[in-house]
Amino acid sequence: MSKITIISVGKPKEDYQKKAFEEYKKRLSKYCEVEFIEVQDQKIPDKCSKKDEEKILSIEGNLVLKRIPLDSYVFVLDVQGKELDSLEFADKIEKLFIASKSHLTFLIGGSLGVSSELIKRSDFRLSLSKMTFTHLMSKEILLEQIYRAMKIHHGEKYHK
Amino acid sequence: MSKITIISVGKPKEDYQKKAFEEYKKRLSKYCEVEFIEVQDQKIPDKCSKKDEEKILSIEGNLVLKRIPLDSYVFVLDVQGKELDSLEFADKIEKLFIASKSHLTFLIGGSLGVSSELIKRSDFRLSLSKMTFTHLMSKEILLEQIYRAMKIHHGEKYHK
Repeated sequence: MSKITIISVGKPKEDYQKKAFEEYKKRLSKYCEVEFIEVQDQKIPDKCSKKDEEKILSIEGNLVLKRIPLDSYVFVLDVQGKELDSLEFADKIEKLFIASKSHLTFLIGGSLGVSSELIKRSDFRLSLSKMTFTHLMSKEILLEQIYRAMKIHHGEKYHK
Repeated sequence: MSKITIISVGKPKEDYQKKAFEEYKKRLSKYCEVEFIEVQDQKIPDKCSKKDEEKILSIEGNLVLKRIPLDSYVFVLDVQGKELDSLEFADKIEKLFIASKSHLTFLIGGSLGVSSELIKRSDFRLSLSKMTFTHLMSKEILLEQIYRAMKIHHGEKYHK
């Protein structure tokens, strides 16, 4: 069975966010195994200099790097990355699965974004939108797009 | 005080979605009045012809049209519309408020999208992403972007 790992920084603060993630995990279980890894976020000081920001990004980035499963194909979510529409994204996933890349990892940075190390480590920089989304909302959107992709490939109707 | 009306088709199915909408409404109350209008969605038959789809779009579109407040500036959410980044979106809202357009309305279609009548009636076709999102997720993203815009204009920090 294919596997999808989503590594993100910080934990959901609101209960409704946790519920949304669990709901998608449950729905996706029909098609693939989904694993969530949450690494510790760093407290952002009120007066945060450029240097402080870089330090936080680097600490958080290193925690993420250590958790990337070997032999998985790595997407990093980055507003500066490439935008795909839902069909292109579904095709991309399908092609990876066909090419025996049956383990996909998605990296989602914290409040300050993703470090340059994470971008270097990734195989594909994916932008969900020109707009900047919160990292928690990005996770929910990503899960929904993966679910949509699975439905498309299984020729199932998707009206939701 | 400025006012924002969001008219959408159908009601949230999951409790966590309702909670997300209410949370953003509460947070936004510091900056503007937010009103949610939900019109009845139509049942989509299992075998839905192009003609059926057009009929559903037209019925849902007419229900939305009737609820658009007079003298408001109307955005319609449409994947074929124009993408703005978060700063451009914040600027657009700010400029409308300065130009005395203190009531903004956002239209979100149902599962099948938006009717041509809604597109004609709108002042701006806004695309949140190249990706197609569910209409409920679009509402949550939109609320978050409006909240982000308000924070930007009030010079407040936004890390969330």
